[in-house]
Amino acid sequence: MTVAAREPRQERSRQTRERLLSVTVDMLAAKGWSATTVTAVAEAAGVSRGAAQHHFPAREDLITAVLESMFEVMTAEAAQTLENLPEGPERIDAVVERAVSIYTGLQFKAALQVWAAAASDENLRELILPLEAKLARAAHKLTVAGLDPTGAHGATAHRLAQITLDLARGFGLADTLSDDSARRAQVTAAWVQQMKAALDV
Amino acid sequence: MTVAAREPRQERSRQTRERLLSVTVDMLAAKGWSATTVTAVAEAAGVSRGAAQHHFPAREDLITAVLESMFEVMTAEAAQTLENLPEGPERIDAVVERAVSIYTGLQFKAALQVWAAAASDENLRELILPLEAKLARAAHKLTVAGLDPTGAHGATAHRLAQITLDLARGFGLADTLSDDSARRAQVTAAWVQQMKAALDV
Repeated sequence: MTVAAREPRQERSRQTRERLLSVTVDMLAAKGWSATTVTAVAEAAGVSRGAAQHHFPAREDLITAVLESMFEVMTAEAAQTLENLPEGPERIDAVVERAVSIYTGLQFKAALQVWAAAASDENLRELILPLEAKLARAAHKLTVAGLDPTGAHGATAHRLAQITLDLARGFGLADTLSDDSARRAQVTAAWVQQMKAALDV
Repeated sequence: MTVAAREPRQERSRQTRERLLSVTVDMLAAKGWSATTVTAVAEAAGVSRGAAQHHFPAREDLITAVLESMFEVMTAEAAQTLENLPEGPERIDAVVERAVSIYTGLQFKAALQVWAAAASDENLRELILPLEAKLARAAHKLTVAGLDPTGAHGATAHRLAQITLDLARGFGLADTLSDDSARRAQVTAAWVQQMKAALDV
């Protein structure tokens, strides 16, 4: 086979993989862990079961790939946000908004289903704990960089970043069963005000 | 039947009901939603399936009763905490500790399983949303009363109570897969410091 013929096939394979991951996130968030099997995902993605199993032999492979993909999307988006942060006090608003958006989107709702399942499944827990730790470290590092770009606030910025991310995780949970965005906006504004006072901006 | 003969029977029935509720909380937290059926709970509690179904005809009845019981325990414990709060700045530490303990215990781990299941089950969601709102309102009211017993801080105390409870919910989630208590203690201390500054105590 020539290089020219191989490339479209690799591209198709990549697209199939992406589609399977995207359908998995939707299905986890909408139908929960039990419903989200490789077979069900393949069917919803319009991919043959064999093709799906070529990419992801077991559900654990699919879930690991979804979490890895969340990590890549989050770090890429966060890096872009960092580059485009406004100057002055609005910087704080933007960093908090970014942190909150990590934990209140569709991807968080999908991750919550994985966490709930992992609470009673030791193998799954062992599989996702390192990925979850990696995600948490990246989110913390990026939030610190956003709050305190010069490093002038040291440990204070680190602690404020932790509160921001735990708070955002709490918002995510409160948003699981009903739209909590109006209440969340008020609490977020109060927290931003607190941080501006603490960082003196 | 005499009154004297009826009372022990009522007492036994009450104890059976309590045991079923307690086993449900343990089972939800340890084995998850799918495993926690009325039949499985009855077996683990050493109660006949018929006796269990007399109290709780369907899993929804069991879950509703568990959430109602959580509400009663939480409000009773919180009221007692309020009466015994220390004077001075330590009051803030005690109130935050109380709020965090609501969301990081076994009962929260059980509730998380119900929430995760309700995300993909509209009937369950309709059933638990009013109970969840009642719990959230009670937790907020008690936290405000603890932070600001004289009402002098008005809206500020309300907002700080909301941040405290969302933060506590975030801690609960972070504690689902691994013991997060050491990290949580540091973040809690940082938040208490922030609140003391905001409330000027």
